[in-house]
Amino acid sequence: MNPLSLLFPRLGRVAVVAAVASVLSPAQPLRAAEAPQTVRQWDIFELELKGPAEGNPFVDVQVGARFSDGSRTVDVAGFYDGDGVYRVRFMPDHTGGWRYETKSNRWPLTGRIGSFTVTPPAKGSHGPVRVHNTYHFAYADGTPFKEIGTTIYNWLDTPEEVQEQTLQTLAASPFNKARMLITQQPESYQRKFAPPRWPFAGKPPHDWDFTRFNPDFFRHYEQRLGQLRDLGVEADLILFNPYGKWGFETMDAASDERYVRYVVARFAAYCNVWWSLANEYDFLRTKTEADWDRLGTLVQQCDPYNHLRSIHNGSLVYDHNKPWITHASIQNGSAVEEPGRAELYRDVYRKPIVYDEVKYEGRSPYRWGNLSGPEMVHRFWCGTVAGTYVGHGDYFFTTVEDTWTSFGGQLTGESAPRLAFLRKIMEDGPADGIDPIDKWQDPRVGGKPGDYYLIYFGHETPTSWPFQLYKNGVTAGMRFKVEVIDTWAMTIAPVEGDFVAKKKDGYDFVDAQNRAVALPGRAVMAIRIRRLGADGAPVKTELPTD
Amino acid sequence: MNPLSLLFPRLGRVAVVAAVASVLSPAQPLRAAEAPQTVRQWDIFELELKGPAEGNPFVDVQVGARFSDGSRTVDVAGFYDGDGVYRVRFMPDHTGGWRYETKSNRWPLTGRIGSFTVTPPAKGSHGPVRVHNTYHFAYADGTPFKEIGTTIYNWLDTPEEVQEQTLQTLAASPFNKARMLITQQPESYQRKFAPPRWPFAGKPPHDWDFTRFNPDFFRHYEQRLGQLRDLGVEADLILFNPYGKWGFETMDAASDERYVRYVVARFAAYCNVWWSLANEYDFLRTKTEADWDRLGTLVQQCDPYNHLRSIHNGSLVYDHNKPWITHASIQNGSAVEEPGRAELYRDVYRKPIVYDEVKYEGRSPYRWGNLSGPEMVHRFWCGTVAGTYVGHGDYFFTTVEDTWTSFGGQLTGESAPRLAFLRKIMEDGPADGIDPIDKWQDPRVGGKPGDYYLIYFGHETPTSWPFQLYKNGVTAGMRFKVEVIDTWAMTIAPVEGDFVAKKKDGYDFVDAQNRAVALPGRAVMAIRIRRLGADGAPVKTELPTD
Repeated sequence: MNPLSLLFPRLGRVAVVAAVASVLSPAQPLRAAEAPQTVRQWDIFELELKGPAEGNPFVDVQVGARFSDGSRTVDVAGFYDGDGVYRVRFMPDHTGGWRYETKSNRWPLTGRIGSFTVTPPAKGSHGPVRVHNTYHFAYADGTPFKEIGTTIYNWLDTPEEVQEQTLQTLAASPFNKARMLITQQPESYQRKFAPPRWPFAGKPPHDWDFTRFNPDFFRHYEQRLGQLRDLGVEADLILFNPYGKWGFETMDAASDERYVRYVVARFAAYCNVWWSLANEYDFLRTKTEADWDRLGTLVQQCDPYNHLRSIHNGSLVYDHNKPWITHASIQNGSAVEEPGRAELYRDVYRKPIVYDEVKYEGRSPYRWGNLSGPEMVHRFWCGTVAGTYVGHGDYFFTTVEDTWTSFGGQLTGESAPRLAFLRKIMEDGPADGIDPIDKWQDPRVGGKPGDYYLIYFGHETPTSWPFQLYKNGVTAGMRFKVEVIDTWAMTIAPVEGDFVAKKKDGYDFVDAQNRAVALPGRAVMAIRIRRLGADGAPVKTELPTD
Repeated sequence: MNPLSLLFPRLGRVAVVAAVASVLSPAQPLRAAEAPQTVRQWDIFELELKGPAEGNPFVDVQVGARFSDGSRTVDVAGFYDGDGVYRVRFMPDHTGGWRYETKSNRWPLTGRIGSFTVTPPAKGSHGPVRVHNTYHFAYADGTPFKEIGTTIYNWLDTPEEVQEQTLQTLAASPFNKARMLITQQPESYQRKFAPPRWPFAGKPPHDWDFTRFNPDFFRHYEQRLGQLRDLGVEADLILFNPYGKWGFETMDAASDERYVRYVVARFAAYCNVWWSLANEYDFLRTKTEADWDRLGTLVQQCDPYNHLRSIHNGSLVYDHNKPWITHASIQNGSAVEEPGRAELYRDVYRKPIVYDEVKYEGRSPYRWGNLSGPEMVHRFWCGTVAGTYVGHGDYFFTTVEDTWTSFGGQLTGESAPRLAFLRKIMEDGPADGIDPIDKWQDPRVGGKPGDYYLIYFGHETPTSWPFQLYKNGVTAGMRFKVEVIDTWAMTIAPVEGDFVAKKKDGYDFVDAQNRAVALPGRAVMAIRIRRLGADGAPVKTELPTD
């Protein structure tokens, strides 16, 4: 799946050098004594190797390892971590015994062999998130992943105490995915604390050596990645952005490739990593769409674990049908103003649709940053019943805090508790995801045909909803339990009695007694309908929890 | 652009046979005496050649010609028209002298040379329609084509007098494009008149010889194609459909290819032809998406004139990013219920978006055929201000008429006059087309920044609209003329006085005196805003008419 030639583009030439070196040197491949003997599934097995520190090891030295469980091999690129230290990281995807052998163009780093045992994952560890059921997500162990994302672009460029506060805020929040930049934006935290670390050797604003990385920057980033993982937060890492003007956005193709390879070699073994090739790719005018296609394909080739990959737009939507793209990451707030819009991209891409930016909840003079709390929550519900996913932002600049979305810290807006309420409803809903029930006819209705329906009325203020279900999955006599949900007040009120399906016409079923569901005449109400099984309880659509 | 090898896939082998034949025969290539000496630009130059009638000429004989104007050559496939007659048709795209030489695998048909002169096009003849300005259409001579399409699937399978009536109805209608099937649906006209002609030799329901075409069927079809052309109606020809169950939908790949080549060889010289690979392609379950990609590419290769090409969906939208597709032909009525939906496909495909089926105006028990007249007109306006195009259908089955959309004849619905009114507004509007002005912010507004705005309020019933224009193309002091349009009553009422742009904030301009436009509090109203030039008249956005 990941041939060594991709990991080591110059290995053909280099292998000769290595062979000569091993003839000249009495050293034989040794068991890497420092390597751990056990590792948990989906955790990180790390080989630490000593090697040359002279010259420019970031460019001169290639190192990696081939891991094998006896029936499958995985080739993994390593990286130089400074001070003559090289590392190769591996995230095993099943339990049992694994062996490895290192490969390099430098003799001290090549031919190291060893073995280790993978033990079961820690409780709560479900592995990387994958696409599930075309439009949805699940962890590698099958546990559904109901995404409620947020955005904290530069949270790693703040003082350490703010970073700690960000982690605490996330821990108490509904957010299980966070978008973050790798390279810096121009604005510093509160416009006064400059980033303490930079990804390249050199100094700002433009004195960089793009052939040398700054291991300290990456070690710090990795520490935070691991903490996010342990909190259950997926890290949607944005490789390129148009904002910084530090020169990172105008690197040449070789530097771009070196940067991508280095980032992937360091970060890919973190199971919570997602790759976002760019934020607002089309505002980064130094790159063409073909460049993005090349860089996205490169990430796909370098990443042994096939983490999720996307690219996020400014005003020009990317062609998410490209094969390297696993899900559509779309900025378009308008698309989730009502479910009929949100649904449309599903058919086009036949992949999960994630509205990663729908404007931010906030109080900004910019129109992308002044949604009310209710409008933010409304957009999540529109996206949800349309079978798509929505991202949150919080943009209230105060004198004691910068904005959450720029730098993390604390949340100011009102939406988060309501998004936690929604997430609970999603997690109690169909394990395979909510899909439109009768797309192009009534986009307010999502669910799983015959078993589960979630109807969202948005800005409508009905006082009654005549019970009616589209025919798919429904047969006469089926019994249903109905609840009325206030998406803002966070209440779920059961409706007395069962509803029984009776055929109405060639399209729909209604209640046998033509009952309607009473509604309070307020906006942002929803209805949940679950089919009752033989035991009189709603049929299970979620997976059993452990 | 169209190498002979594509036209004659077996010519390599066949050329030897022809060479042998010309040695054995005393006949030399002759000037084709029957060929016309002049033809109008974009009209059809036709070579009639006598050749073998024995065997199966549809399969055995390949014929074509290379046309040259001295600097460019165009290779054109001919076809067998029965009774030993072969034809090669050519639609010249500019005036002046052309030469030709025929090619064939049969000596009487090969090596015929000749020349002719192309004279200027007839008045009102503008050539084939092309994509213009990414999202729009124009004729080859640059004249904008403002599409108002309709659907008359089987109008050529009705009694002759109904076909004549259809032509009369079209002549008096706003429709400048009509979708029509080539092969038949199962229902006959009024469920009693069977189709008088079939595309293949044999007889219904399933006794067909797919290696032999029925020239009479095609000659009749061509007569009607020419009449549509002369009426200014583009013929959107549907090559395959899932409805007939005559066996045409289960032909093998070789028969599909032979059929496509024959149809293109016969019809492509009609300047009003568009190719629609299929109606509801995804309901034709005998073909895969890869089959459609192959057949669409084949049409592109065979058609020397690069007529517009599309494919129409049932419930699964095709990948209109495929390079052979010139514009997205989409069935989705929901997408034009409001402009915010209609706009979304534009960005995805970056091609013209034509909603070729948005449900039909009618009185059908099927929910795809019971739109009211006002709803049909509403959908056209939604699509128009979103920078897309919409198609009409009329589905009122009566005892004296079948439905317009199935068989032509007469229109029953109320929308057509309002669509004529809309077409006039479109033709008086920007020559380069109406585009969203501030997409994702206010999808009600389409136009050309700074010069022309069309705002459609749909189901809203405002009594006032505060004059406000998005900043693009606008500078302070610009003067605008405002008119209030009733899209159903077909009235255009000028608002007294001019509006003068004054900057409001970082996004918008308002009127210098903060004036608002009074509206009547009814639905389906629109506003047209045109910038006034130095002469006090609206600036020209349309092309001058000849």
